Amino acid sequence: MDLDFLSKLIKNADTKIVMIVIDGIGGLPKEEDNKTELELAYTPNLDKLAYNGICGLHTPVGSGITPGSGPGHLGIFGFNPKKYQIGRGVLEALGIDFILKPGDIAARGNFCTIDENGIICDRRAGRISTEKNQQLCRILSDHVYIPTAKVFIKTVKEHRFLIVLRGEGLKGNLIDTDPQKIGIKPLEPKGGIGSDKTVEIVKKLLNQTKDILSDHHPANMVLLRGFSEKPSWPNFPKVFGLNSAAIACYPMYRGLASLIGMDLLKTGQTIEDEFKTLEENWDKYDFFFLHVKKTDSYGEDGDFNSKVKVIEKVDELIPSLMNLKPDVVIITGDHSTPSILKSHSWHPVPLLIWSKYCRPDNVKEFGERSCIVGSLGPMFPATDIIPTALANAQRFEKFGA
Amino acid sequence: MDLDFLSKLIKNADTKIVMIVIDGIGGLPKEEDNKTELELAYTPNLDKLAYNGICGLHTPVGSGITPGSGPGHLGIFGFNPKKYQIGRGVLEALGIDFILKPGDIAARGNFCTIDENGIICDRRAGRISTEKNQQLCRILSDHVYIPTAKVFIKTVKEHRFLIVLRGEGLKGNLIDTDPQKIGIKPLEPKGGIGSDKTVEIVKKLLNQTKDILSDHHPANMVLLRGFSEKPSWPNFPKVFGLNSAAIACYPMYRGLASLIGMDLLKTGQTIEDEFKTLEENWDKYDFFFLHVKKTDSYGEDGDFNSKVKVIEKVDELIPSLMNLKPDVVIITGDHSTPSILKSHSWHPVPLLIWSKYCRPDNVKEFGERSCIVGSLGPMFPATDIIPTALANAQRFEKFGA
Repeated sequence: MDLDFLSKLIKNADTKIVMIVIDGIGGLPKEEDNKTELELAYTPNLDKLAYNGICGLHTPVGSGITPGSGPGHLGIFGFNPKKYQIGRGVLEALGIDFILKPGDIAARGNFCTIDENGIICDRRAGRISTEKNQQLCRILSDHVYIPTAKVFIKTVKEHRFLIVLRGEGLKGNLIDTDPQKIGIKPLEPKGGIGSDKTVEIVKKLLNQTKDILSDHHPANMVLLRGFSEKPSWPNFPKVFGLNSAAIACYPMYRGLASLIGMDLLKTGQTIEDEFKTLEENWDKYDFFFLHVKKTDSYGEDGDFNSKVKVIEKVDELIPSLMNLKPDVVIITGDHSTPSILKSHSWHPVPLLIWSKYCRPDNVKEFGERSCIVGSLGPMFPATDIIPTALANAQRFEKFGA
Repeated sequence: MDLDFLSKLIKNADTKIVMIVIDGIGGLPKEEDNKTELELAYTPNLDKLAYNGICGLHTPVGSGITPGSGPGHLGIFGFNPKKYQIGRGVLEALGIDFILKPGDIAARGNFCTIDENGIICDRRAGRISTEKNQQLCRILSDHVYIPTAKVFIKTVKEHRFLIVLRGEGLKGNLIDTDPQKIGIKPLEPKGGIGSDKTVEIVKKLLNQTKDILSDHHPANMVLLRGFSEKPSWPNFPKVFGLNSAAIACYPMYRGLASLIGMDLLKTGQTIEDEFKTLEENWDKYDFFFLHVKKTDSYGEDGDFNSKVKVIEKVDELIPSLMNLKPDVVIITGDHSTPSILKSHSWHPVPLLIWSKYCRPDNVKEFGERSCIVGSLGPMFPATDIIPTALANAQRFEKFGA
């Protein structure tokens, strides 16, 4: 639903909403016992919530669409992921905890190899080590000089790095200099309306870079892509009237949350740490986003059993959450990551919403197949999760008289 | 769906559709026996229709949105309630059976108290009695004189009244004069493009009112809000090719039906009266909207058992309806009104459509939880009800070749 429409209906209430995102929670059954990771996991506490709450499966973006982490999270935060698209450069910044300021331009960089004629012969410079990357980023940072903008060059991993331009009047509407193939030269920087200044800066930057790296074969040049500005999107706390905090160990998720205005809480590396952080900050916020990463990581590794164990760990911690007396609890994922696919997938994502004002349905356990007949249905739009939670938290005025 | 799209597919047929709106039918279970009002009610006739028809739950406006009566009804009449929004003034007119003409401007009024400096000290004039209100409206009607417009001033209840301006070239785009707080003066009338004439009339009206009421402390001034024009919306009978009649005891629902062009049938105060009116007018119309109010009233009173009894009363009258041999019967509500919440709510609304061309699903009784697995699903868009009924009444051409 339209954020403006929803925002006009918001009223204040002294209620708290907790959203636990078990990243990549949805799975596919293993052949041996025909159970998914979630179905196999022993989850008495989640099952109890399912019994007393409402269940279904949500569609993060649309039927058949496999979302990345960005669109997956934006949807469950109520932001239409087709409308609110994050540029690759910005995503790269979020992923390494680089705090973008309004007006910053970010791009993703590759170290690459060019021959004596400037022709690209390896787009990834032989996948240099991360250590080598760090060394080169330091050299570039020390030697690149652009009088009209501040330039940040930060290592991501192997051949990948982040470049950020900070200055007055910069634009993100530049084409990639990476032609996505070898045997030709890198493309000349070009841009759309209002991008002249930025194009000039990028040209200078690339000329200097070529000189600086000339002795560093195979990493003797760079390719840039995904130029993008820090988006100025609606502010989640303002739109929904929720003083909001994010509890997440991984930079990407903290970055996404901060992009829409949530406060970032310091936390540790374990799920227990995250639930402890939730407890310690309980009085300070109306909305908590708590992110569990390892289900997705193990799913991508194809490690079915470890994914099961992470789900069971979350289940064990549910009673500590319920002791805090939340008004609304949402348990879901940002997408499915079936271990047997070793990747994100398009499959709908198990969804559970609990509050004392839910009209209970007939779902008695939290699992992919049990949720199909829940009252949220098998294809609940992800962007309807937050409105439903707000209603259950009694934070909406009636629409019309 | 788009009304234009639907309208182009309409064909004539000698079939009749009856829509029974059991206002606020949806509920929440009582703790004792874990049953909702509808689940507890003994409804053998509705259950039989459910068994032979198709069931589901509809979403009146969107997930989490609690609709007022206006949006709730517009949705089930096939009109997108986010697009067709009714101004407060117009709604107030509908609520007291005041027939607006095209071009009329309606506003909601409060009698209020101002001090000697014109500062508001009570926005509701001590909630004067309805009798006092009637007396003051008579006085104002007798003494207000505006040469360029006809002014109607009608009692609503306690401190609330309706004001309607009728004349050439009037506009509804005026701001409220009610500042919604005390300690300041009423706001000066102001308006948007083309509103000069209306603003002048309202200024005169308020000046005269202040003089006329000066001796009537505490009701010595008025505040106006919700200026709105009678909307010129698509005409339900024309769009859907249905000669249509409304059977409703309460003014608001008659007003809503007349706003979209339905004929209003005279009826009595009981549900039996309404079903009798249906029978008496059977040959004259293709579509009947029959409104049952008391389920909502008892829901708002928190009177669970009386709401159950009203549902049972409707059930008793179903055989008399079926004896008329309708082609399509729709049974639903405009929203949920759970007795335990004592208010309208966001919960999806039980929906039953019966015709001899339904493909029966597995629902064997009409209730919130049984409908979840019906073939209309747990979140059927309200605006899809009429198209589904038209199809079952064989009133649509095939779309495309």
